[in-house]
Amino acid sequence: MKRTRSEHDLLGDRDVPMTAYWGVHTLRAVENFAISGQTIGQAPDLIEALAAIKQAAALANADLGLLSADRRDAIVAACEEIRAGKLHDQFIVDQIQGGAGTSTNMNANEVIANRALEILGHRKGEYRFLHPNEHVNLSQSTNDVYPTALRLAAWAGMHRLIAAMASLRGAFAEKAAEFSDVLKMGRTQLQEAVPMTLGQEFNTYAIMLGEDEARLAEAAQLIREINLGATAIGTGITAHPDYAERVRARLAEVTGIPVVTAADLVEATQDCGAFVQVSGVLKRVAVKLSKTCNDLRLLSSGPRAGFNEINLPAKQAGSSIMPGKVNPVIPEVVNQVAFEVIGNDMTITMAAEGGQLQLNAFEPVIAYSLFRSVGHLTAACKTLEENCVRGITANRERLRESVEQSIGLVTALNPYIGYAAATDVAMEAHRTGRGVYELVLEKGLMSQARLDRVLRPEELTRPQKIVA
Amino acid sequence: MKRTRSEHDLLGDRDVPMTAYWGVHTLRAVENFAISGQTIGQAPDLIEALAAIKQAAALANADLGLLSADRRDAIVAACEEIRAGKLHDQFIVDQIQGGAGTSTNMNANEVIANRALEILGHRKGEYRFLHPNEHVNLSQSTNDVYPTALRLAAWAGMHRLIAAMASLRGAFAEKAAEFSDVLKMGRTQLQEAVPMTLGQEFNTYAIMLGEDEARLAEAAQLIREINLGATAIGTGITAHPDYAERVRARLAEVTGIPVVTAADLVEATQDCGAFVQVSGVLKRVAVKLSKTCNDLRLLSSGPRAGFNEINLPAKQAGSSIMPGKVNPVIPEVVNQVAFEVIGNDMTITMAAEGGQLQLNAFEPVIAYSLFRSVGHLTAACKTLEENCVRGITANRERLRESVEQSIGLVTALNPYIGYAAATDVAMEAHRTGRGVYELVLEKGLMSQARLDRVLRPEELTRPQKIVA
Amino acid sequence: MKRTRSEHDLLGDRDVPMTAYWGVHTLRAVENFAISGQTIGQAPDLIEALAAIKQAAALANADLGLLSADRRDAIVAACEEIRAGKLHDQFIVDQIQGGAGTSTNMNANEVIANRALEILGHRKGEYRFLHPNEHVNLSQSTNDVYPTALRLAAWAGMHRLIAAMASLRGAFAEKAAEFSDVLKMGRTQLQEAVPMTLGQEFNTYAIMLGEDEARLAEAAQLIREINLGATAIGTGITAHPDYAERVRARLAEVTGIPVVTAADLVEATQDCGAFVQVSGVLKRVAVKLSKTCNDLRLLSSGPRAGFNEINLPAKQAGSSIMPGKVNPVIPEVVNQVAFEVIGNDMTITMAAEGGQLQLNAFEPVIAYSLFRSVGHLTAACKTLEENCVRGITANRERLRESVEQSIGLVTALNPYIGYAAATDVAMEAHRTGRGVYELVLEKGLMSQARLDRVLRPEELTRPQKIVA
Amino acid sequence: MKRTRSEHDLLGDRDVPMTAYWGVHTLRAVENFAISGQTIGQAPDLIEALAAIKQAAALANADLGLLSADRRDAIVAACEEIRAGKLHDQFIVDQIQGGAGTSTNMNANEVIANRALEILGHRKGEYRFLHPNEHVNLSQSTNDVYPTALRLAAWAGMHRLIAAMASLRGAFAEKAAEFSDVLKMGRTQLQEAVPMTLGQEFNTYAIMLGEDEARLAEAAQLIREINLGATAIGTGITAHPDYAERVRARLAEVTGIPVVTAADLVEATQDCGAFVQVSGVLKRVAVKLSKTCNDLRLLSSGPRAGFNEINLPAKQAGSSIMPGKVNPVIPEVVNQVAFEVIGNDMTITMAAEGGQLQLNAFEPVIAYSLFRSVGHLTAACKTLEENCVRGITANRERLRESVEQSIGLVTALNPYIGYAAATDVAMEAHRTGRGVYELVLEKGLMSQARLDRVLRPEELTRPQKIVA
Repeated sequence: MKRTRSEHDLLGDRDVPMTAYWGVHTLRAVENFAISGQTIGQAPDLIEALAAIKQAAALANADLGLLSADRRDAIVAACEEIRAGKLHDQFIVDQIQGGAGTSTNMNANEVIANRALEILGHRKGEYRFLHPNEHVNLSQSTNDVYPTALRLAAWAGMHRLIAAMASLRGAFAEKAAEFSDVLKMGRTQLQEAVPMTLGQEFNTYAIMLGEDEARLAEAAQLIREINLGATAIGTGITAHPDYAERVRARLAEVTGIPVVTAADLVEATQDCGAFVQVSGVLKRVAVKLSKTCNDLRLLSSGPRAGFNEINLPAKQAGSSIMPGKVNPVIPEVVNQVAFEVIGNDMTITMAAEGGQLQLNAFEPVIAYSLFRSVGHLTAACKTLEENCVRGITANRERLRESVEQSIGLVTALNPYIGYAAATDVAMEAHRTGRGVYELVLEKGLMSQARLDRVLRPEELTRPQKIVA
Repeated sequence: MKRTRSEHDLLGDRDVPMTAYWGVHTLRAVENFAISGQTIGQAPDLIEALAAIKQAAALANADLGLLSADRRDAIVAACEEIRAGKLHDQFIVDQIQGGAGTSTNMNANEVIANRALEILGHRKGEYRFLHPNEHVNLSQSTNDVYPTALRLAAWAGMHRLIAAMASLRGAFAEKAAEFSDVLKMGRTQLQEAVPMTLGQEFNTYAIMLGEDEARLAEAAQLIREINLGATAIGTGITAHPDYAERVRARLAEVTGIPVVTAADLVEATQDCGAFVQVSGVLKRVAVKLSKTCNDLRLLSSGPRAGFNEINLPAKQAGSSIMPGKVNPVIPEVVNQVAFEVIGNDMTITMAAEGGQLQLNAFEPVIAYSLFRSVGHLTAACKTLEENCVRGITANRERLRESVEQSIGLVTALNPYIGYAAATDVAMEAHRTGRGVYELVLEKGLMSQARLDRVLRPEELTRPQKIVA
Repeated sequence: MKRTRSEHDLLGDRDVPMTAYWGVHTLRAVENFAISGQTIGQAPDLIEALAAIKQAAALANADLGLLSADRRDAIVAACEEIRAGKLHDQFIVDQIQGGAGTSTNMNANEVIANRALEILGHRKGEYRFLHPNEHVNLSQSTNDVYPTALRLAAWAGMHRLIAAMASLRGAFAEKAAEFSDVLKMGRTQLQEAVPMTLGQEFNTYAIMLGEDEARLAEAAQLIREINLGATAIGTGITAHPDYAERVRARLAEVTGIPVVTAADLVEATQDCGAFVQVSGVLKRVAVKLSKTCNDLRLLSSGPRAGFNEINLPAKQAGSSIMPGKVNPVIPEVVNQVAFEVIGNDMTITMAAEGGQLQLNAFEPVIAYSLFRSVGHLTAACKTLEENCVRGITANRERLRESVEQSIGLVTALNPYIGYAAATDVAMEAHRTGRGVYELVLEKGLMSQARLDRVLRPEELTRPQKIVA
Repeated sequence: MKRTRSEHDLLGDRDVPMTAYWGVHTLRAVENFAISGQTIGQAPDLIEALAAIKQAAALANADLGLLSADRRDAIVAACEEIRAGKLHDQFIVDQIQGGAGTSTNMNANEVIANRALEILGHRKGEYRFLHPNEHVNLSQSTNDVYPTALRLAAWAGMHRLIAAMASLRGAFAEKAAEFSDVLKMGRTQLQEAVPMTLGQEFNTYAIMLGEDEARLAEAAQLIREINLGATAIGTGITAHPDYAERVRARLAEVTGIPVVTAADLVEATQDCGAFVQVSGVLKRVAVKLSKTCNDLRLLSSGPRAGFNEINLPAKQAGSSIMPGKVNPVIPEVVNQVAFEVIGNDMTITMAAEGGQLQLNAFEPVIAYSLFRSVGHLTAACKTLEENCVRGITANRERLRESVEQSIGLVTALNPYIGYAAATDVAMEAHRTGRGVYELVLEKGLMSQARLDRVLRPEELTRPQKIVA
């Protein structure tokens, strides 16, 4: 039995393995783009999105009388198999590829065509019965299929990320409640400032996440805008006038995602603005997460000579040479993911800027970078929640002492003794190592009763009226 | 008469010129931060925002019985002078400064106090009558005043930018209408693809701008969120419980900007997310503008051997050596502004990430970068509109010929002769230099009547049903 | 038979599979860092570098009497197996990891120890005979082993890249020779300027590559500086005074790389400057390659209405919808790699900036990014050479015509008729579509004989004296 | 008397003020590029470089018999005035400009021509006696003059930066000597690791600076490579064959800078690689300075509850609300400059990547960004040295105690009691708060005499042999 079949394209004939669902276009792309070693098959969101689009297109084409029922059914069946996780190993094109995604689209067309041929009782490669371009790709172009697939995949990933962030937010909020009565010194510019609670500090991290979830959800509204029906450049050449709306409705049905068709398909086909926006928001998420992790590492610095205010759970031996050393490895890995996301945003920015005329040829590296950002941030949120935040404890004793010894308390006395006198007290406390409380009394600046009232812990962490 | 007066701070005494409205804190900052040579006085939006905040604070403090009417009135009068453009030369601190904006706030407190002292009939420096910190800065901290000022200044700049973009959008839309009947070849990956109109091409630029205006307007909603009342770290220490709402209302009144107070002031005081978001959107604007200008330069490449599809208005001699050379200098300057904005976004990203605990000490460089991005983009939009887009003309003859000679026409025949046969036609056209039209007829692939119907220009630039 | 063995660390006991060469430290790291799905085993340069270091350390320790001969031999044998490509699947820690590389070092220690135990006739896990930390890691710390391994791996990758660039340079140089007699119009700012040869144009690409090779070779000199002997923070705690020099000599012997020991180990242990420098040079390479590919795409734009000066070899069908379309897919993929490298440089920059005190905890993401940049650039150079540059052909006829019709020729007349008169000729040529040659004659500005002499093609592409 | 004179260019006639040394080309550029408000006159290095080049060109042209002696002398005299600081206010073009620097070159040509005309006894504008393009710009093009000017200006700035860095390095080295006997705990990942001296820590900062100075000096070698003689695109059109070498020699003579002519002028005219390289090195400098300042802020965190190991000199009141607060404002401003430099590098990268064919049109924004990076870094080094490093003091008592109480000491016992036993000691110390010393003795793991020998401070900060 023959081990290969011959396929034809505009460059001539090539043999592909008989077992391969992919064909000549895929083969050439594999040869041309041996770059990252990461195949599109390793991006399951993308593969499932492609299959959903091809399925919706087959349904829409049949709705419009452009595709026969048996071909439609075979294509739909093949797509459903792929969406169920099968045949992903047949998507072998490198994620970083030239050609604006054509090779990805061709790979999908070929795999679906060949699986559909089998379903129809034919052999792979018998394209006269069902053709990758003429049937699977009917009414489509890479230039509408590929960006739509990226958007569906991004939608899926973004919602997983939002869920992971929400869960992490919950962990911070729980800690905020747990620490709501732990008084500590707030710091500005790494110097003690005025009192606050550790609960207020942790609540901040929860709020930041919540805001970022909202921004991501907004960006997701942009990402669900598709350009199917645009075909090559947005003019809809070769597409039936009703196709754009039919395929949109079918795609919404197939995926459950409320996709909308862009108002202007010429614009939509060349515009990478939504990816830039999403990446910009991901960068924002990264910045905040990184800042939060910097704080966690700082607050837990120690074990004896650092800030030593909180304890992160020990997760692994911290050193191959220093016995018993435990390091903040989880926040550290989150920092690194944040740096990667910020770098990916730069890649996406340059790729978006490089688009020319009616198309952006660099969408593959946008996808490559965006999927990494989304996926790694999701994983980072998960490990941060599970392996770090949920196990954080407070060094309550140390925190209490730091407030009692602090010079920053003097700020609360501003409304009573004035900025200038308070400055003198602070400077003397610095110089002598003595406490603000005793110095104020010694200098007769306030009565002890009034001072005690003003410095009541519960009064220090929120606005208060002048004490009579 | 004495030429100087002596002022005091926690480091000791210093002489400042008698004529100076600024004082000792400003003096030290000038000595410490001789970095960019750009003073805050050269950022008038910022100075006016600071004055508006100090005015609102004086009003709110008086409302709450914390400030006497005469001091209030003097401070208000001084602030209104500054908001009218006076005394900006007294704001002499470098825009790039350490200290989280403290020097900017101190500079404002000192200038306002000294001008208010004069209004009250005192001499500059007689702070026992009205004190920069105790009265002008009453109920405030740099950490709520400074970020609020940045937000008001950004709001103003962003709205000027939106207006400039809208005006530029109008120019593109007019050109789109003017060119709506000019058929040309659309291009993907710099290769001719399928027909479109030059109007569709220019309409795209208008739509992109419109979308970006919408994104900027969304981001402006985030930027109007203020943290006045937070004081040092968001706990509101030294502030009256009703102050936050009073000052917000007064500030809205004074500026006409619908400011809202952040839900959590501890979070708001340390969070630079809104600046990151705005900068991310500005980067998006930059990317799109740059892409648009790349296109304009490409389409006007020539004068004889390039694309030569459109003509940009000549604005200046293009060369010191090549006589008669005219270059696309306006798009080029817009490209460069875009590159600057993208760089500024990186600066802002790093500064935001570097924030620690209850404050971001690096807001000054965020402001420095953000104001540049907003201002330069506004200027870029203006020159692009006035000195370029409004004067663009089309080379109609050349464009028409390019469609007639194109191989890409063959795409329209896909539904009639199939992808495989169409590929053969295209390859033969490539090889022989002949036209698609004649080849299709010669091969008997379609009747002339049908072919003429399919290739009618008005049919090529939008979806069409199969021609019977 | 038992399927697992129990291992112990500072957090307690854990079972690992009996078949696993890795142990408890690796297990915990895998659980903590499920981020990228890319294991360190997928970075063979890194694994081989680790093994070489462990081998050199064992030899050095034995040289100094700190390790017995049988343990040394077993460790060396295990390391040589790994360097021969074995056991890479046992290196299962995620490339993006917290802990400054400790998990990578621990993974190496465990795999080597267990393989060495087998070689010694023991079972895996019988660490009393040979311990991952006490013997394999003897005189070492992650903080000297890990950065040294990154440097060795980078060295290997950089030299493969330099070789790929040199080969690509050769292809450009060959084309430059082939096209040395093809006259064309040079362009500045996308407008025709003055004549040059296509050979000069291609020679530029070769020269750029050569310069970048030189810069990379310089950077490689920095990367070969190691800090073995530093142990935890550079003070050499637990290391024998002669160890640093012994292990350096042994490592040079084992790898053939002329490694040198940093002059100050405290500095070397915390400094990521060499990685920033290398990444900066890689960014430079990326910028140049991207510019070159932009040019190739531009010069080959067409097929009929673009620049159409050169032809890139067709490598695959360019479109799923547009028959016969061929796109510049190879330059496009190189552009994308360049964008990725520039993004990676940003990641590396942030990670380097984030280092604190005696160590940079973020080296894993530096490695992750650097290895990608080096590897993808190498692949990009290869495909650019093989699948593009070597097959480029020139459209000689079109190029010749473009020179003859050009207005830019008038520049050559500057020394004869002056800038002002030449400007008038150019403007008239613009206006009328006529040629410079005929206009100059018509206006009697030069004699035909002199004009012919000045415009001889061979004179136009290099400096010339005034023609008498 | 007339207040204006009329000038002519290819677009027609325009009036310029009689007093203006600039002419019609400058006027148009000012109208076209109202972007940043920063004129080229505010970049004195650039203006002086332009004047030096024009002076050298006039000398070279006269040497070759192409320019009369009186014109030469007038041009030289005008240039020397400019190089002495005069007429800089006549350089009014915006630093951010389209046209690849043509407007800058034209501005220079016009100012020099008009000043030279005056010197010759003519009036400004009487270009028939001495013409901006035909005489001042003789044998030149913007495309060789402008990049050469950028390089000379960068050379000057880079050497000022190197000097500032060397001086700062000296300050760190002095502190390193002063603190050479101050024992402290080194930290990895913000956790105490093993002992070192504060002198070793500060010495690191000195060494880092020294390495960066060396990298900058290397990059300066690239920047001194010029392309004068290239004229428009590197082919040397209109230039005498001996001009390139003559003008190089004259320029070296005029400036004292050892300029060399690029080996291939076509390549050199389009290549921005040297700027990318320099900016990459500046980014490296920024990264290291930022890391150093992060450390200084961390080590001085306090005043009571932070690391509190060193004291930065107080430079200004740290807060408008918190009396007596002193902040690390000098390191903070250095951090911000670093972030700006990193952003500038991104701008430069994009501008370099955007170059097309024979020229990079975006050099003005490269210059704008590069000059800022160099200048601000120089200022940052100066204030860091003078206002911070030279005044740093150590909290010796606190540092000593932190070593005595540290758990990290146990690392030194590894060679005696093994990693596993040492881990048990460390964990018990963690749990109980007790000291390593007493626990080791209590458990009988080492004799007191041996323990005392191993833990001698002078032994802990460098490699040591096993104590017998």
